[in-house]
Amino acid sequence: MAKNQGPLSGFRDILAPEMLSRQEMINTIKKVYESYGYTPLETPAIERYETLQGKYGEEGEKLMYKFTDHGGRKIALRYDLTVPLARVVAQHKEEIPLPYKRYQIGNVWRGESPQAGRYREFLQFDADIVGTSSLLADAEVIMMMSDAMRALGVNAVIRVNNRKILDGLAQKAGIKDASRARKFFSIIDKTEKIGIKKTIEEIQLSFGKKEAKLIGEFLEVDGTTNARIKKIKKIIENQNPNDGILEIVQVFKILESAGYSESEVIFDQTIARGLDYYTGTIYETTLLDFPQIGSVCSGGRYDNLIATLSDNKVDLPAVGTSVGVDRLFTALTKLKRIKPIKTKSQVLITNFDQKDWGIYVKLAKQLRQERVATEIYYENSKLDKQLKYADKIGIPWILFAGPDEIAKGVVKVKNMQSGEQKTITLKEFTKLLV
Amino acid sequence: MAKNQGPLSGFRDILAPEMLSRQEMINTIKKVYESYGYTPLETPAIERYETLQGKYGEEGEKLMYKFTDHGGRKIALRYDLTVPLARVVAQHKEEIPLPYKRYQIGNVWRGESPQAGRYREFLQFDADIVGTSSLLADAEVIMMMSDAMRALGVNAVIRVNNRKILDGLAQKAGIKDASRARKFFSIIDKTEKIGIKKTIEEIQLSFGKKEAKLIGEFLEVDGTTNARIKKIKKIIENQNPNDGILEIVQVFKILESAGYSESEVIFDQTIARGLDYYTGTIYETTLLDFPQIGSVCSGGRYDNLIATLSDNKVDLPAVGTSVGVDRLFTALTKLKRIKPIKTKSQVLITNFDQKDWGIYVKLAKQLRQERVATEIYYENSKLDKQLKYADKIGIPWILFAGPDEIAKGVVKVKNMQSGEQKTITLKEFTKLLV
Repeated sequence: MAKNQGPLSGFRDILAPEMLSRQEMINTIKKVYESYGYTPLETPAIERYETLQGKYGEEGEKLMYKFTDHGGRKIALRYDLTVPLARVVAQHKEEIPLPYKRYQIGNVWRGESPQAGRYREFLQFDADIVGTSSLLADAEVIMMMSDAMRALGVNAVIRVNNRKILDGLAQKAGIKDASRARKFFSIIDKTEKIGIKKTIEEIQLSFGKKEAKLIGEFLEVDGTTNARIKKIKKIIENQNPNDGILEIVQVFKILESAGYSESEVIFDQTIARGLDYYTGTIYETTLLDFPQIGSVCSGGRYDNLIATLSDNKVDLPAVGTSVGVDRLFTALTKLKRIKPIKTKSQVLITNFDQKDWGIYVKLAKQLRQERVATEIYYENSKLDKQLKYADKIGIPWILFAGPDEIAKGVVKVKNMQSGEQKTITLKEFTKLLV
Repeated sequence: MAKNQGPLSGFRDILAPEMLSRQEMINTIKKVYESYGYTPLETPAIERYETLQGKYGEEGEKLMYKFTDHGGRKIALRYDLTVPLARVVAQHKEEIPLPYKRYQIGNVWRGESPQAGRYREFLQFDADIVGTSSLLADAEVIMMMSDAMRALGVNAVIRVNNRKILDGLAQKAGIKDASRARKFFSIIDKTEKIGIKKTIEEIQLSFGKKEAKLIGEFLEVDGTTNARIKKIKKIIENQNPNDGILEIVQVFKILESAGYSESEVIFDQTIARGLDYYTGTIYETTLLDFPQIGSVCSGGRYDNLIATLSDNKVDLPAVGTSVGVDRLFTALTKLKRIKPIKTKSQVLITNFDQKDWGIYVKLAKQLRQERVATEIYYENSKLDKQLKYADKIGIPWILFAGPDEIAKGVVKVKNMQSGEQKTITLKEFTKLLV
């Protein structure tokens, strides 16, 4: 195959078997979001460069697809869905109800070097609540993610922490400088990957023995949510402010009232989240049957980000969640929670004689009206070829009909998998299918 | 508002009221397509420039968004969904079943000067059958469009012609040169816009009296499909090949067998379709209650295009259809066949006391489990403010619940539109809603 036949590297075509099951996964999540009152938003793929400029740090600046449009304006392909959200909130201030609960499903583009699994175009699926600092919103986002995982049929645990607890820890460790605190958090963030022991070692190397001891105490806290909270409270006590503990207690009180158990949501003080901008509740999601794939949806509260991203045009607290679509899809496929769907067609009407085309289309119409997806083989090829098509597409039923059958008011059908054949009325056949 | 707050001109944000009803429209069409056995395809927004280069004529070349990626490769944003289809068919030859019936819903980008209604990013919704020259496929595409229009609740008539009939006409007029024939067709294509009289005048100016007379005869043919076919056959008789008439007769025979009447599908010899590449059946769709908006979905057979677009990597006959998403949405909105949906939320649980948050989330969970989309007001603000939110979002029911109600096993609800209030059990309330 000539090299230039395919899509660009880092890009991909998604054909039916994957597309149909991806759609199913996305629709399942969407329905959960809509049950919480989120509404969809769509923003352009292309933004003014000045809207995106300086919003993603050095790496983002490098990976962004930037170019010049027909009017000589500097433009760029969107890099995420959060900056566009901030722009939309600033622009449509009057129109948008606050709090604004929106979900957005859209591709983003990043000029990554396409290593294993790193796409240059990938789907983001975000949901955010902009305009409230109520902890009820934090709790709702967590409940919603738990509901989404349940709707997808997977055992997932949402691991929740609060940035303010980590701030308290840094304070206790005497780390005041912001860039040192960032370093401190970024090491904690690696705990899941490298283990507690290595994390402690790295802290000792970068900070010192005292700090390493404190981190050791902190990371090793385990047990139930309530037990952990108590122990963590003790470790960071007398730190000011102690809001992190108060917030996490409140969030778990809400979750408990709503009936979410420890097997669905737990407090986990080792979650740090890589991104700088979180200010309160943070969380990650682990699939219990496939933990090694990592967090399939994550998020948290970011009360200062909208102001920054909108160039101070609006200043609104926000909390949100983002599904790792590709990662979740991979996991669901491996766990056999979703399977490739090659087609929705249930019946192939075989084609034997051009003079019977009228019979075929009439039957097809009747079946389609009964919500049975039906195809007609377009040519009167050999039966063998027609069966091969049904097999390749994955159509479960073959229907044979000619003037004889029609005169008797019946059709002959064959199940492709069992090989079972019968002659029945169309009505009986339809009943069998829906 | 600062000018750089908004999206780039020619681009747009689509907020909930429009997004939700657009989604509804698109899903309705998608379901019809899937009932015919079409499966979805997704291709990247970005293609190699060499894949798109020279495929869209001079204008396309000018309007295409071209740029250079991080590896110095020339790339471009896709300009339509047909060239990507040709690339996919060439690339995934082995994997793809033939005939390949796919639909694709995706944005395309064109650097149009953004006049009224001309977007630089807009959604295309195509469905095509690649790999069969059976007229059954032509007829199916037409039936499917008719079914889609019916599913959308609009009165639409699909007007069908065949390029070979126009070829016969050109032959009869003695026009042999391809570029002159193109000119001839492009004048005929304007008939609907400028009227028969002006069309005849233009033909006379560009060709001559004899040709104008012939065109007059041809365009003035009216009546039922059968009557028209007979008259047109007479006008172009003795032309060789006469396939156009044979094909149109066959297509209408199929349509008639399947029960499609003259009020849904008619033969209309004045349809020419602007694009060069059609080779057989062509059609347009007129909304009977809003004809002035123009064709809302069009298409036809293009047997040589896949070869051209795939740079002769595959040579397959094809027939397809394309919905004008923006135009159809405008029409459906004006005809009140769809209305803006501000939210899917049915209930807002009011928030009076932080200590009752547990009650609110429990109720919300129960309602959501019964498929009632439910929101909780996040702050215990004044009732007035909470009602204003419900009103702005368009949530029809308000729910009041505190310890007293819960103790009695009831909730107080109020309908926002009628003002009606009642105290009922949650079960009764749910029944009212679903």
